[in-house]
Amino acid sequence: MDFDMKSFQKDIKTRQEYVEACLQNCVSLLDAYPPLIHEAMHYALFNGGKRLRPIMVCEAALLGGGSREDAIPAACAIEMIHSYSLVHDDLPCMDDDDFRRGKPTCHKVYGEANAVLTGDALLTAAFELLSQNAQASEVDLGRTIRVISEIARAAGSRGMIGGQVIDLESEGKNIDFATLKTLHSLKTGELFQASLRSGAILGGMDEPGLQAITDYARNFGLAFQISDDILDVQGDEALIGKPVGSDEKNHKTTYPSLLGLAKSREMLKESVASCIQSLEPFGERAAFLRELACFTMYRES
Amino acid sequence: MDFDMKSFQKDIKTRQEYVEACLQNCVSLLDAYPPLIHEAMHYALFNGGKRLRPIMVCEAALLGGGSREDAIPAACAIEMIHSYSLVHDDLPCMDDDDFRRGKPTCHKVYGEANAVLTGDALLTAAFELLSQNAQASEVDLGRTIRVISEIARAAGSRGMIGGQVIDLESEGKNIDFATLKTLHSLKTGELFQASLRSGAILGGMDEPGLQAITDYARNFGLAFQISDDILDVQGDEALIGKPVGSDEKNHKTTYPSLLGLAKSREMLKESVASCIQSLEPFGERAAFLRELACFTMYRES
Repeated sequence: MDFDMKSFQKDIKTRQEYVEACLQNCVSLLDAYPPLIHEAMHYALFNGGKRLRPIMVCEAALLGGGSREDAIPAACAIEMIHSYSLVHDDLPCMDDDDFRRGKPTCHKVYGEANAVLTGDALLTAAFELLSQNAQASEVDLGRTIRVISEIARAAGSRGMIGGQVIDLESEGKNIDFATLKTLHSLKTGELFQASLRSGAILGGMDEPGLQAITDYARNFGLAFQISDDILDVQGDEALIGKPVGSDEKNHKTTYPSLLGLAKSREMLKESVASCIQSLEPFGERAAFLRELACFTMYRES
Repeated sequence: MDFDMKSFQKDIKTRQEYVEACLQNCVSLLDAYPPLIHEAMHYALFNGGKRLRPIMVCEAALLGGGSREDAIPAACAIEMIHSYSLVHDDLPCMDDDDFRRGKPTCHKVYGEANAVLTGDALLTAAFELLSQNAQASEVDLGRTIRVISEIARAAGSRGMIGGQVIDLESEGKNIDFATLKTLHSLKTGELFQASLRSGAILGGMDEPGLQAITDYARNFGLAFQISDDILDVQGDEALIGKPVGSDEKNHKTTYPSLLGLAKSREMLKESVASCIQSLEPFGERAAFLRELACFTMYRES
């Protein structure tokens, strides 16, 4: 598992810039009436995020044999869904966060009612974008419908929203390893999986390929969450953008709090190894996804 | 404009029972993990509503030459969207309502955070239902995609959500006639329109027919809102389920507050006449939609 941080950062930056430009492009539809809600949607969407999910959509589309361009509406739609979930998670009645990545959260700028509506609007716009594009593009309609279905399932009550419900129910409680794994696999894992699967489906990947990319997604989600928890224990405050030790202070059960740091690092390493193994069928074409998995072991933010 | 209330009530009851059974059927997917969110979704969806929108979807599908069955997923999806909008509108940061149709509102029963998530989940489930069904049914995929696109647009920031934003901005202000009309045409009119158009598209209606049904929808939305405002001035508290005069108390601009009661009644009558005129191309097959428009002049709740 060789990993060259400098080379990875170059590779991901190119992809981030591409996604950023596509997002800017597809939100030209945000220049509409009434202005307030569209301004707030713009604020929430351009939030300094890493754009991991849309990058995954595009990579999987290429791996499937398709083009990045055909996957862009799905990539932007998934980023809109991710952004809406952050806006609602930050609300006073949820995590009550005033800042996200150093910027005031949506409800601090636009008020609570407008923040609820901004989240609703981003979620709705995601499906509008997916369906509008299907009408305009050359991509097979059956594939687009399948993608809409997978994204809706992953983002819904049996996926991301279900994970948030379990997270809220677990507040201040000690939860066991199985519950912790389920919580994260729903709250963040499902949308990672939908990102990779959507791109792959749009690109025309066959079923064994889809299975391999799904295995990668599952292991990536786990690796990403463990690395998040480890960073919270021993990261650099200035880099991660929140106080170190905030999970412990908030009595949150994490991988390190349940397993200890050494065992958590071990599990992270195993998940990354599983990621890399899942990518074998794709050979050199999966180089970036391989780097992305390794990155979870070396990330500083 | 003959109208027989007894006969209408019989006609709408049959349709309500059909929709209610279909909703029960399609939410079998709500028997899932985690239980809390699915129980709350069920609570919000089975709220004693009139089911006007799904009934419209089915009627328009028949008018277009299709079957009610093919339109049922769209009908249920639109009712889920309507229900989610009520859950979010009732939140403390929005209208702060404790009761809806005599039952405690979602956030009173499940808490504020879960109510936000319940709305999110119903909205997401609507699109899952639409796309899942497309994969299973015989309906042309292109029609389903068009319907998803129309519903998403109508429910989004340039439609229903935009209307709610204007409504919140207008609180305690005097707004003019044009703003009042825009507010309602976005907040409630767009989803009525999407209901009728979705059914018509799924049923295979031609473009002139679609134009006629769109005209009907626009005038129906106006008639429905005026009748709502009139009821608030002179309705029977026990029947409308909220105190008479609540709009005036809340300093809400309404059709009667801007135009007076007599002029409002005149406008209601004109809108209903326009509804009936729009239905002419459909002859006797549009009998129920004709009754439904007339009902706005005679409704007591």
